[in-house]
Amino acid sequence: MTTLAGKDGTVAASATTTAEPARDFTSVSGREVAPVYGPADDAGRDHARDVATPGAYPYTRGIHASGYRGKLWTMRQFAGFGTAADTNERYKALLAAGGTGLSVAFDLPTLMGRDPDHPLSLGEVGKCGVSVVTLADMEALFEGIDLGTVSTSMTINSPAPMLLAMYLVVAERQGVPWSRLNGTLQNDILKEFIAQKEYIYPPRPSMRLIVDTFRFCGAHVPRWNPISVSGYHIREAGATAAQELAFTLRDGIEYVQWGVDAGLDVDAFVPRMSFFFNAHNDFFEEIAKYRAARRIWARVMRDRFGARSEKSWQLRFHTQTAGVSLTAQQPYNNVVRTAIQALAGVLGGTNSLHTNSLDEALALPTTESATLALRTQQILAYESGVANVVDPLGGSWYVEKLTDELEAEALATFDRIDRMGGMVAAIEAGYPQREIAESAYRFQQAVETGRKVVVGVNAFVADQEAPLEILYIDDSVAETQLAQLARIKASRDAAAVATSLASLRAAARGDGPLMEPLLDAVRAYATVGEMCDALREVWGEYTERAEF
Amino acid sequence: MTTLAGKDGTVAASATTTAEPARDFTSVSGREVAPVYGPADDAGRDHARDVATPGAYPYTRGIHASGYRGKLWTMRQFAGFGTAADTNERYKALLAAGGTGLSVAFDLPTLMGRDPDHPLSLGEVGKCGVSVVTLADMEALFEGIDLGTVSTSMTINSPAPMLLAMYLVVAERQGVPWSRLNGTLQNDILKEFIAQKEYIYPPRPSMRLIVDTFRFCGAHVPRWNPISVSGYHIREAGATAAQELAFTLRDGIEYVQWGVDAGLDVDAFVPRMSFFFNAHNDFFEEIAKYRAARRIWARVMRDRFGARSEKSWQLRFHTQTAGVSLTAQQPYNNVVRTAIQALAGVLGGTNSLHTNSLDEALALPTTESATLALRTQQILAYESGVANVVDPLGGSWYVEKLTDELEAEALATFDRIDRMGGMVAAIEAGYPQREIAESAYRFQQAVETGRKVVVGVNAFVADQEAPLEILYIDDSVAETQLAQLARIKASRDAAAVATSLASLRAAARGDGPLMEPLLDAVRAYATVGEMCDALREVWGEYTERAEF
Repeated sequence: MTTLAGKDGTVAASATTTAEPARDFTSVSGREVAPVYGPADDAGRDHARDVATPGAYPYTRGIHASGYRGKLWTMRQFAGFGTAADTNERYKALLAAGGTGLSVAFDLPTLMGRDPDHPLSLGEVGKCGVSVVTLADMEALFEGIDLGTVSTSMTINSPAPMLLAMYLVVAERQGVPWSRLNGTLQNDILKEFIAQKEYIYPPRPSMRLIVDTFRFCGAHVPRWNPISVSGYHIREAGATAAQELAFTLRDGIEYVQWGVDAGLDVDAFVPRMSFFFNAHNDFFEEIAKYRAARRIWARVMRDRFGARSEKSWQLRFHTQTAGVSLTAQQPYNNVVRTAIQALAGVLGGTNSLHTNSLDEALALPTTESATLALRTQQILAYESGVANVVDPLGGSWYVEKLTDELEAEALATFDRIDRMGGMVAAIEAGYPQREIAESAYRFQQAVETGRKVVVGVNAFVADQEAPLEILYIDDSVAETQLAQLARIKASRDAAAVATSLASLRAAARGDGPLMEPLLDAVRAYATVGEMCDALREVWGEYTERAEF
Repeated sequence: MTTLAGKDGTVAASATTTAEPARDFTSVSGREVAPVYGPADDAGRDHARDVATPGAYPYTRGIHASGYRGKLWTMRQFAGFGTAADTNERYKALLAAGGTGLSVAFDLPTLMGRDPDHPLSLGEVGKCGVSVVTLADMEALFEGIDLGTVSTSMTINSPAPMLLAMYLVVAERQGVPWSRLNGTLQNDILKEFIAQKEYIYPPRPSMRLIVDTFRFCGAHVPRWNPISVSGYHIREAGATAAQELAFTLRDGIEYVQWGVDAGLDVDAFVPRMSFFFNAHNDFFEEIAKYRAARRIWARVMRDRFGARSEKSWQLRFHTQTAGVSLTAQQPYNNVVRTAIQALAGVLGGTNSLHTNSLDEALALPTTESATLALRTQQILAYESGVANVVDPLGGSWYVEKLTDELEAEALATFDRIDRMGGMVAAIEAGYPQREIAESAYRFQQAVETGRKVVVGVNAFVADQEAPLEILYIDDSVAETQLAQLARIKASRDAAAVATSLASLRAAARGDGPLMEPLLDAVRAYATVGEMCDALREVWGEYTERAEF
């Protein structure tokens, strides 16, 4: 947008005004909202039943009666790059800056269950996350950090049980009992099939692996969340808020059903399931989404699964601000976007929060940008006053109505997926994938036609921009990791590795426990690639059908 | 805050946890809020009477039925530094970047009605705002900007009528009829006595000068707001949100009373009064403050003054984010603070908005930081969805209750000031000054004891910080202005100047119009200092009594 000059060189302010971007009154998800909401929108609402008080079923207003007065959300910044030693240094900096939890980002080879010497790992080692190949890397990652006091989240899915096994063995060696470990494993394969596409095995054996972690953690790691059912990536792939909500909760239902079908007691594992949502641009739609999520989950757990523990009814979730909303153009604008999105997460009652760094559209965050992202949370927590009152928007005619609408839409989606035979069947039929692709296309069209404004991208574009200093990860990480892998292979007990991998294959062929043979393989310094390959041999690899 | 290392060098996350800053559950104003609000807080509320619909009396939910769907707030960034030519360049950049209004910051000599050659102007010319001495500067300030299309705000008080007269003569010379001029003159002397202390004359002749601008604008500049009754500086001086609200609206009442007492018809000048509030840290307290302000003003105008025009009932206000909340430490944190504060202003229905730049705690903003501040508004307007629904927090049990409480507190303060004989009498007795000083002291104590956290200042302090590039104004501005002043004095018609100033003094001695002789003086190129001195000779200067 440029200011037009009149014939005499006069800058006409009206030129700026007429060149104003289009106004569009739908949400970022394309939702129509009314211009005003009022008491009529509240008519007939049964507050005691549907909204209730904070800490009371159905938890629309939060799972804790005292909100953030009792405990602030966990400020958990996702980080990982280069070698384990590089990332260990960043973790210590984040803890020193007041971070209250750790969150591991793994590199692509690790996420795909491939070692650094795999041909497809070329150029990817340590680039978008930390490279973890064997137990030795996991030990280096947490060197000098007491696993008995820190809370750790690990964002990994197909190879999640392998990485969990590594974490457990590090705890063993630190002398920390597993009963004291706090943290979360993402371990959500359904959203990989739906959205992020980082899967190895077909859906059904993948589900078996996950259910085995429910069993194992329930028995041995009672304070650990073995899954974080994630809407984040569904949203990043272009889903609407309603789709993010519906597909994520339906994924959660699918995991519960598989656990129950495997003979687990619902109240034994559901209390340790956690969720992970996006915080996107539309401020009120996001707040309503979190409120609806709690209410839906409580009702589904009680009424569909007959859960009797309040802990099974209470949906706990992590939030991350929307990476997809950030722009490479005018990157400091991202500080503003992230602050507003984070505030939505907090007003929606998130239990933990990652705020994106301003440079994440360009590269991995620098220490400075990661610190500013953390400061964003601290300002919300300590300066804005929003943590003083639980569910401060409760009663808002607009927010309550949006909450109701999002709940109703999710329930309709549940019905549809139930009729398809459940989420695994729906994924195999390509249903959620198609729905999301359509939403993504509609949003992209709206941006391209200018109906949806992205500041600095399709409006308010700058003629020139100052370059930003970004973090570069060089290729020496791959060399370091390859050299270390060679050393470990030369020094480990090869027979013990072979025996443990054989046990793992045998377990996969049968229907017994999988975590126990994985722990043995980790203790023998088997690599992530070797463990994943053992299961590939039995289960095969999944390929998405072309018509999706 | 540093992370403590255990005896074996292990970083204990719990060390960070125990070092967490204190939690305090009062607002930034020290207001006690309940942990939760619910339907019981709504019991007995007459929504139709007290909340009503947007666009309907008492305008709690906004003065426009369509909110920001009909018209976005004006993005009006306060700017001024150096010479008029320097500032003119910044204005053109802001308009080109999508700013929708101009706002003039004057330097201290201009604000105090002193020419650059006055001894007290030494070192201050062009430093904290633009130096405007004669009509020649005002012409240069708006060179190439069409006053018929732009909306201009001028932040000046004691010499406000002199600067308004200059603006009107620039319009004359551009060929723009006064009837087409849009803008606002701050012209609020009461808050100067209360808080900012930039006054010249005693309160009563100062009030006369202001009432004369009401008369003049009502007759000749009908779309111009001759006053912006300002809580901003009251808040910046340390007032609480409730004090900002009460003292500002009571100042407004005082101006209306003086206008009525001078024989003006209330519905002829009140519709053109505007207000100016702060957007401070406490998100919900600020939103409630704006809602309460509209309701109080509507009721006071209708019931106390018998105004019959809806335009007299409708409070319109500008908002500026809280400069006092910004920190020199970790200046990028200010982007976050400003974004949250701006969102509060928008959710409270502000009619125009200035967002502070991240470097304002250190210096005048650079072009880059001023642009980022404007982008903050654009992201709120075009990406966050908050402009889609009018008064989206309406019905929130917390926000409605806070709105009621703030209204009740303001009415109690009005009673007290009425009993003192009005605001001029209360100021002469030092009442609002003392109340604000006490609040400022309490907040300072809370920060010093760590009970109130300021991120980066008394918590989450960085060991080292990268320096920020800031804008320096050098002393060449003073030389330029002194040289120009000498040239103008040499070339102007000295007799015309003397005659016009003599007429001004004569008018001040009597009780007739003041704007007309000021316009003649401006046309003769009399300086701001000369015009102010003419009135000083008649009215004297005000000095605050020592016991305040």
